Amino acid sequence: MSQFNMKSYLGFWGAKVEEFFESYMTCPNPHTKGLTDAMRYSLFAGGKRIRPALIYSSYGIFEGYFDKVTPFAAAVEMLHTYSLIHDDLPAMDDDDYRRGKPTNHKVYGEATAILAGDGLLTKAFEVMCNRDINPDVDAALMLEAAYKLADASGDRGMVGGQFADMEAESGVFNAQTVDYIHTNKTSRLLAYCCELGAILGYGTEEDKKRLFEYGMRIGLAFQIVDDILDITSTTEELGKDVGSDAANGKATYPAVHGIEDSHRKAELLIEEAMEIISVYGNTADPCREIAKFIIERKN
Amino acid sequence: MSQFNMKSYLGFWGAKVEEFFESYMTCPNPHTKGLTDAMRYSLFAGGKRIRPALIYSSYGIFEGYFDKVTPFAAAVEMLHTYSLIHDDLPAMDDDDYRRGKPTNHKVYGEATAILAGDGLLTKAFEVMCNRDINPDVDAALMLEAAYKLADASGDRGMVGGQFADMEAESGVFNAQTVDYIHTNKTSRLLAYCCELGAILGYGTEEDKKRLFEYGMRIGLAFQIVDDILDITSTTEELGKDVGSDAANGKATYPAVHGIEDSHRKAELLIEEAMEIISVYGNTADPCREIAKFIIERKN
Repeated sequence: MSQFNMKSYLGFWGAKVEEFFESYMTCPNPHTKGLTDAMRYSLFAGGKRIRPALIYSSYGIFEGYFDKVTPFAAAVEMLHTYSLIHDDLPAMDDDDYRRGKPTNHKVYGEATAILAGDGLLTKAFEVMCNRDINPDVDAALMLEAAYKLADASGDRGMVGGQFADMEAESGVFNAQTVDYIHTNKTSRLLAYCCELGAILGYGTEEDKKRLFEYGMRIGLAFQIVDDILDITSTTEELGKDVGSDAANGKATYPAVHGIEDSHRKAELLIEEAMEIISVYGNTADPCREIAKFIIERKN
Repeated sequence: MSQFNMKSYLGFWGAKVEEFFESYMTCPNPHTKGLTDAMRYSLFAGGKRIRPALIYSSYGIFEGYFDKVTPFAAAVEMLHTYSLIHDDLPAMDDDDYRRGKPTNHKVYGEATAILAGDGLLTKAFEVMCNRDINPDVDAALMLEAAYKLADASGDRGMVGGQFADMEAESGVFNAQTVDYIHTNKTSRLLAYCCELGAILGYGTEEDKKRLFEYGMRIGLAFQIVDDILDITSTTEELGKDVGSDAANGKATYPAVHGIEDSHRKAELLIEEAMEIISVYGNTADPCREIAKFIIERKN
């Protein structure tokens, strides 16, 4: 795997998901063209597609019918995209740029951005529960996938993490708060992606647990690296405002532990993640490459 | 059924749903207490619980195991509640009162209100896809219920209707626009409730279609009556600001057709709804009473 090109790899799976968006995200009615435009704008705003890649890669450990994974990968990316749109809102992080482009509310206005987010969140479950586009997946597995997505992304997961993040801005925070925020705001959904691969690949309960634990670790490392890059990068490198965490008094790993210790923690997490999936053969190599990429990435 | 007391009837099913909220809507973590509080505030803000009553009533045509319906009825009420929280936001309708109480963002702030809405929307699908709390419902039926909920409430349904409603405020609108808005913003979810009863009661495809059509009609009548009450009621009677539709230049039935024609249209829809369910015996009487209630209600 010394020739492994992460950019091509992410691009390959990203293209599959974007093909799905292209065919599925059509405008249902002339009255809602502006809404469809806003939803598509953020879906096509050039994300890294790390979540889809994690789902396909984890799934690849068990099976090779990758086409059946696509609607699920697209659904998770829709859900992730809604969370970015709402996080960027003036009442939330109030960000003007995301991935080098104006944020959704800057282009379409606040009301439409709220509705575009609501629409994408709802559509994630619409896609995931639609048997017509998932004919090769058991109803029981689809339900498990949908339930665990809701669990990972609601008040017991991502939304809870975002709430704690907002709260921490207005007061003091400690290492425990930062752990709660990062675990829930970022890691839970990434861990879900990895577990989802095992679910769709008919992995055992042990496989699901293993991929979940791998995902929690690379997810936390991912967020720690994000926080470090916010301090050490330029706006050009990152495609979004830098230094905004410190300016907003955000609860981050570097703010509590410093940059060096934070980087060491991220490295340790990646080592643990590698160890967890060491039971698998070379079908798990893409998962290993993603773990390496997360710690080495520059944007 | 001359003794039928709608207030007691709605209260009876409302209490079942509130019992579910009480036991299920606990705080997952001290870090998110404020979020749980905000979600519970709007869930317990005294809605009419017309959607749960429609689900139980439609289900009662086919079966009598009402306890199995409760998580689904609670999920739909969670989804309805999220839509109210987001609709009331400053960037949307900017309402200060709802059901006689300050709106969610007035109490908890805008950021928390957005997240409470996101959390409730996500939790609706969490509850609906959770097999542990729905052990007596087939996985395939649960999926059908979840998929159709997403379809009715997303960009092809309720969210699309809300978007068209916002758009109409800023320009001209005609009878066709008003039809689109009302059908999608209100009727689709009410029609879903009626169809859901048939789904959970193992009704035939024809039963589902019939209850859906009944629901579309009482749903549209419900919204027309809402629009009329906004003009003819006082704030005390309605528990929310009155006359705000006209002040905001809202696309409503009375605005396009006048009050008298609107009322006649609502009556006609109720007659059609009654005709559609005339094939059922007295197990459908609660559905008939709800239809009558919708046209006669004063708030």
